[in-house]
Amino acid sequence: MRIALFQGTPKPLDVPGNLERLQHQAQLAAERGAQLLVCPEMFLTGYNIGLAQVEHLAEAADGPSAMSVVEIAQAHRIAIVYGYPERADDGSIYNSVQLINAHGSSLSNYRKTHLFGELDRSMFSAGPDHFPVVELEGWKVGMLICYDIEFPENARRLALAGADLILVPTANMEPYDFVCQVTVRARAQENQCYLVYANYCGAEGEIKYCGQSSIVGPDGSQLAVAGHDECLLLAELAHERVTLGREAFPYLADLRQDLHSRSS
Amino acid sequence: MRIALFQGTPKPLDVPGNLERLQHQAQLAAERGAQLLVCPEMFLTGYNIGLAQVEHLAEAADGPSAMSVVEIAQAHRIAIVYGYPERADDGSIYNSVQLINAHGSSLSNYRKTHLFGELDRSMFSAGPDHFPVVELEGWKVGMLICYDIEFPENARRLALAGADLILVPTANMEPYDFVCQVTVRARAQENQCYLVYANYCGAEGEIKYCGQSSIVGPDGSQLAVAGHDECLLLAELAHERVTLGREAFPYLADLRQDLHSRSS
Repeated sequence: MRIALFQGTPKPLDVPGNLERLQHQAQLAAERGAQLLVCPEMFLTGYNIGLAQVEHLAEAADGPSAMSVVEIAQAHRIAIVYGYPERADDGSIYNSVQLINAHGSSLSNYRKTHLFGELDRSMFSAGPDHFPVVELEGWKVGMLICYDIEFPENARRLALAGADLILVPTANMEPYDFVCQVTVRARAQENQCYLVYANYCGAEGEIKYCGQSSIVGPDGSQLAVAGHDECLLLAELAHERVTLGREAFPYLADLRQDLHSRSS
Repeated sequence: MRIALFQGTPKPLDVPGNLERLQHQAQLAAERGAQLLVCPEMFLTGYNIGLAQVEHLAEAADGPSAMSVVEIAQAHRIAIVYGYPERADDGSIYNSVQLINAHGSSLSNYRKTHLFGELDRSMFSAGPDHFPVVELEGWKVGMLICYDIEFPENARRLALAGADLILVPTANMEPYDFVCQVTVRARAQENQCYLVYANYCGAEGEIKYCGQSSIVGPDGSQLAVAGHDECLLLAELAHERVTLGREAFPYLADLRQDLHSRSS
């Protein structure tokens, strides 16, 4: 599978503009042979927009903006992962990401479980105990959002559930460059999974995003890395690299689950 | 607290020679103001020595070699962490590390829980569910051995038990440089602990060790890093750095233990 990752400057509050940009990037990615496009956290609305705007712009997972993403995916025959503020049936608002396949079906929706500081907590409810792993083009795909990946427990949970590809829309800012440069490589290698870390660049209010999005292989090597500007990264995934990685570092087999297993 | 780390070429099967070297390095470290010296995995005997020699050289945690380490610690008024093959009361042999304080008391003994490939499994039993955290000079100290640090669960276990300093005697070989360069930095940062990774350099049989020992701060920065030659690294630890690290990255406070808690 070929994967595309879009790194761009946020366009806060401009849902139509972000959908138009998504349409353009999906077209570019498809023309370059990609079967999946991954965009940053809260891509449809921007991230640093405050509670009032989040409440105003939040939609259901099958709301009108999702239907626009479905049309884009179908038009360009490419799967899309994007972040958005989700209004749940009970009125709670989550920081969510959704995976729409090339036929326009929603394969999975994940609500951020580990909220980052006052910024997240002022806008969102924390996600429930639900870490879906779904199949896409022969890959087992799990999703996390930004701060989630900094906790090894989350990626491990996905890997133990069978994931070999972890998609991480993010809005990572200065001075947290360490996460881009070190943490995401460690997460990929310690789980022998491909990892796609799709960040913003540029500024949004007082936040300066640190760019440096990357697609990392199951041995922790960076297959593609962005700088601080807008770009579309591309990388080819191969099942053989996962197999070889798991032979070289049999962490999942060697983990002493008798010492460290979860309670549920 | 000032910490010293000795990186050297193994001297396989030469226990008296290794004790003499330990005495020399303890003297040097103490002269440079260190209160703790950390040596590699299986330092007393070498690591790649095979089952027959391990059975021949294994000693109890309070055996004659341990008594020699006690004398060295007392003579130079420095705490020492060293690796050795341990014969337990029931005859099992473990890959162990022991912490002797400057008064010559054994503060803790840890048996490697995550065995590495056939090399470890041909010589050792896997350690039990015992990850001690003890106090040394005002620091809460946990220990792991080599492969153990590659599993995030182990360091997390120590950090959740209160550790702010994790000591990791190791025998890490080519081509696993990634662990020296990326993994140990991620472990320190994701737990906001100091981490001391004391490796061999040089060769031992068919094994080429990859050196690159390091002392890493709670923000993941490398305070001291070795190359591929014998050396004594020194670094000063400050409680304030742990406090600041835990303010900047409140992972231990933010971890959703409701999602990921252990069963016991």
